[in-house]
Order: sequence, then C-alpha cells, then structure tokens
Amino acid sequence: MRILGIDPGLATMGWGILDTDGRKNALVQCGAVITPPDMPMHERLHKIFVDVSALCNTYAPDEIVFEELFFAKNVTTALSVGAARGCALCACSEYGKPMYEYTPMQIKQAVTGYGKADKHQVQQMVKMMLNLPDIIRPDDAADAVAAALTHAASGRMKTQFLMK
Amino acid sequence: MRILGIDPGLATMGWGILDTDGRKNALVQCGAVITPPDMPMHERLHKIFVDVSALCNTYAPDEIVFEELFFAKNVTTALSVGAARGCALCACSEYGKPMYEYTPMQIKQAVTGYGKADKHQVQQMVKMMLNLPDIIRPDDAADAVAAALTHAASGRMKTQFLMK
Repeated sequence: MRILGIDPGLATMGWGILDTDGRKNALVQCGAVITPPDMPMHERLHKIFVDVSALCNTYAPDEIVFEELFFAKNVTTALSVGAARGCALCACSEYGKPMYEYTPMQIKQAVTGYGKADKHQVQQMVKMMLNLPDIIRPDDAADAVAAALTHAASGRMKTQFLMK
Repeated sequence: MRILGIDPGLATMGWGILDTDGRKNALVQCGAVITPPDMPMHERLHKIFVDVSALCNTYAPDEIVFEELFFAKNVTTALSVGAARGCALCACSEYGKPMYEYTPMQIKQAVTGYGKADKHQVQQMVKMMLNLPDIIRPDDAADAVAAALTHAASGRMKTQFLMK
C-alpha cells in the first residue's frame, strides 16, 4: 500500500510518499510545496491545489493522511492556514481515495513512543525507521513522512476518518 | 460587465451575478452553495470548489468580488470558514479573472451610505437598487449581491485587489 502524508501549511506544505506492507516501510519521495508570501493569496491557494493534485496523480497513493492543525497563533493565522489545508483537502477529495487525520501527539507517540517528543527526536526516529542516510529536510517534509508512518503502523485500527 | 459576488461560508456560501454598465445594474441570478454538516469536511470543501467553478463557467463573470471575513468566533471556526473561503478563492483563481475584496463595512457604506447599517437595511437597499419585488433570500445571497453592487459602484477606483 502507498500512503501520501501531508503536513498542511500555507508557506510550506510538507509531503511524503511511503510504501508499506504493514511491517516494512520504504520512503519513495518527499518534499514541500512552497508558496512565496508576495504571491496573491488566491494564487498561493491555487498552487497548493494544483501541486497536491499533481502529487496524487503522479504517485497514485492508496490512502492519504493529514497531520491535524491543532493550533494557530490567532484567528488571522487560522484563516490563512485553514485555507491552505482546505485547498489540499479539496485536491485530495477530488482524487478520491480514503483520507485520515492524526493529531501531532498521536504522530509523536507512534513514531517515538512519547507524545510530547520534540521535533529533533521525531526527525531522528523517522531517519532510523526508514534507514535513511540523514534526517529529512525541511522539517515539514519530515512531519509529513512521520504522519504517513503513523498511518502505516496503525494496521487495522484505521478509524481516524477525517470529518472536521 | 458581469460581476460575481461571493459571501464566503462553510455551511452557506452566498453568491450573486450582477450585470452593470457602471450606472445601471441588473441582477442575473443569485443563490447559495449549501454543504450539510454531516458531510465529511473534505467533501464539503470539494463541493464548494466544484460549485463555485460551475458558477464561473456557467455565468462567465468578468470580475469576482469577495466579502472579506473580518471575524471568526474562535480559532476552530476560523480554520473551517477559512478553508471554505480558500476553496472558493482557489476555484476563482483557476477561472482566472481579476478578483477583489471588500470589508463588510465598505459594503454597508457603499450600499446604504452608512458603514454600520444592519442586515435588514442592507437587504432593503439591495432590493430597491435592483428594483426587485422582494428582498433576497437567504441573507448570504443578499450579502453577495451587495458585494457585487459595491464593486459596480466603485467605478475606476478598483484598487482592492485581493492579496491576503
């Protein structure tokens, strides 16, 4: 099974493609969709939609996993980050495969065994679990891969359908 | 010139199509995109994207106007309303015509002459300005038409390009 993990954001949206047989995991590709702050908002959102659609169509994941946005500094930030997440959700919905969502705490717990692990610990565990030569950069791509790993490890306990 | 006005929202997104020659305005059509709360979030967002795309392609507006979201009750609301607005912006961006945004206060000022007019006053003025037999329902459709009227009245002062 192939999983697309997404760590939503406006300026940087991390993504990672993971192949798993339920025991062994292999990283296929990862990266980040970048939108520059001087681009008009509607063009940034459209770029996210187009790029996430392209990821779906290029890598043909069977399931898609989002890291849940659990905070935003303020209402203005929430509006723009929510819009970016919304356009990624929309693109994935158009693609049509099952979608799931995990909280940052669930992801940290699954990857490091500790729900309050810091970013560095998550990156190191992702590197080890996938037998990579170095940690994944940028951070958002590492977070997206961690979300995909969480889903791969969830086995048949996949009840985290995205509803919100 | 044909203007599409949009009052963004998740459960109800008002829209209105206005033809204007700069002096006379005629309402072509208005309504609301409705998404039920028991539909998964990603499907609601995709419906908004598809329906707003269909409005653009069906009515072929020359310019598009959004009412600015100037508040949200809390961060959670801002995330979901921001996502809905984001998907509408994305659909309009794909359509490719110029996009503008006005604050609720600018719209009230333009339509009623008073920036703190209430919803009822705006609805009554929209009815009068367009020579309609009754006020527009639902409220969100009336707000969308008011946004389009604001843009029609702005003449050559159209500097409100949407950037946020």
